[in-house]
Amino acid sequence: MGTEAGGAIGRLTEALGKLPGIGPKTAERLTHYLLAASRVEVFALADALRAIKENIRRCNQCCNLTEGELCSLCADPRRDASVICVVEQPRDLAALERSASYRGLYHVLHGRLAPLENVGPEQLTTSQLSRRVQGGTVKEVIMATNPTLEGDGTALYLSSLLAPTGVRITRLARGLPSGSVLEFANSQMLADALEGRRAF
Amino acid sequence: MGTEAGGAIGRLTEALGKLPGIGPKTAERLTHYLLAASRVEVFALADALRAIKENIRRCNQCCNLTEGELCSLCADPRRDASVICVVEQPRDLAALERSASYRGLYHVLHGRLAPLENVGPEQLTTSQLSRRVQGGTVKEVIMATNPTLEGDGTALYLSSLLAPTGVRITRLARGLPSGSVLEFANSQMLADALEGRRAF
Repeated sequence: MGTEAGGAIGRLTEALGKLPGIGPKTAERLTHYLLAASRVEVFALADALRAIKENIRRCNQCCNLTEGELCSLCADPRRDASVICVVEQPRDLAALERSASYRGLYHVLHGRLAPLENVGPEQLTTSQLSRRVQGGTVKEVIMATNPTLEGDGTALYLSSLLAPTGVRITRLARGLPSGSVLEFANSQMLADALEGRRAF
Repeated sequence: MGTEAGGAIGRLTEALGKLPGIGPKTAERLTHYLLAASRVEVFALADALRAIKENIRRCNQCCNLTEGELCSLCADPRRDASVICVVEQPRDLAALERSASYRGLYHVLHGRLAPLENVGPEQLTTSQLSRRVQGGTVKEVIMATNPTLEGDGTALYLSSLLAPTGVRITRLARGLPSGSVLEFANSQMLADALEGRRAF
């Protein structure tokens, strides 16, 4: 279609091309698909897009994304309110929930400390976390930031921030990923696995 | 986020997952990206989606998609109005335009004859094509439907439909794709290439 169909089509291809993992070719293919798709389907997608910006806010307690005051996890009385698992992003929370191996609450930082990108503690939800821990019901805070330089730095910062409260602070185990082969593990994985070895 | 963030996020993931080539994993990744993206960016995409259904219509002459009465190709006096290239879809027109080797006009069928899917001539823009050719200015109609069973069938049907008008009817050449190697050409390609051989 290119030039001849002009504005609207070009704008859609451009907007789609900005999404991660969608190059110009895929954006054009998607545009052609959407041009042929039903009005109902296209409007449903457009409305869903608007809705995530209009209806989604941060949970008053854990800063996870939600449509109400409290997210469904914080509102669930069956969750153990004495443990808080600190994650960088809502997607990390989603991954942990999918594993179905955790029954406590979460705290979503919405980022990690990155001095080079001017992301300091004020840009994250660290003060809300501090307040929650000072509340008194929390017994343990699990650092589940990414096992990267910045994730580790963020966990270190938070652990010293929370140290005065006397709460127990832990972090996720490091080692060999289940189902992997030793041969292809890198030296950091092997070092972690050795350091964290447990009695058999 | 899954269940806890509820409605709006789930609806977006679902709507994205319906797009071709976007599975549940990619849909979730895109949703997380859009949740973190700026309001401006997300609204631009939503508006572009609505716009293609609200502003885009078929060109009065060639049935290509456009925002006006006539598409920019039909409105361009530099295009040769005596030749019409018949394509199945707007994306085929776009591909031909990219090749920059054609200066005539087009006619977009918006599909091909597919009896098994109940697509007959009435579902395509065949009557508009007939009327254009009967208009008298057209000297040649190039069949550029896809080189498939259904595309060939559609071209055959149209050529007999237009035969009474006495217009010259041609079809795109078949042969070896430029840049390919003979070794990997299939038998149909080689048969086409032999049949269509030209003096050196």
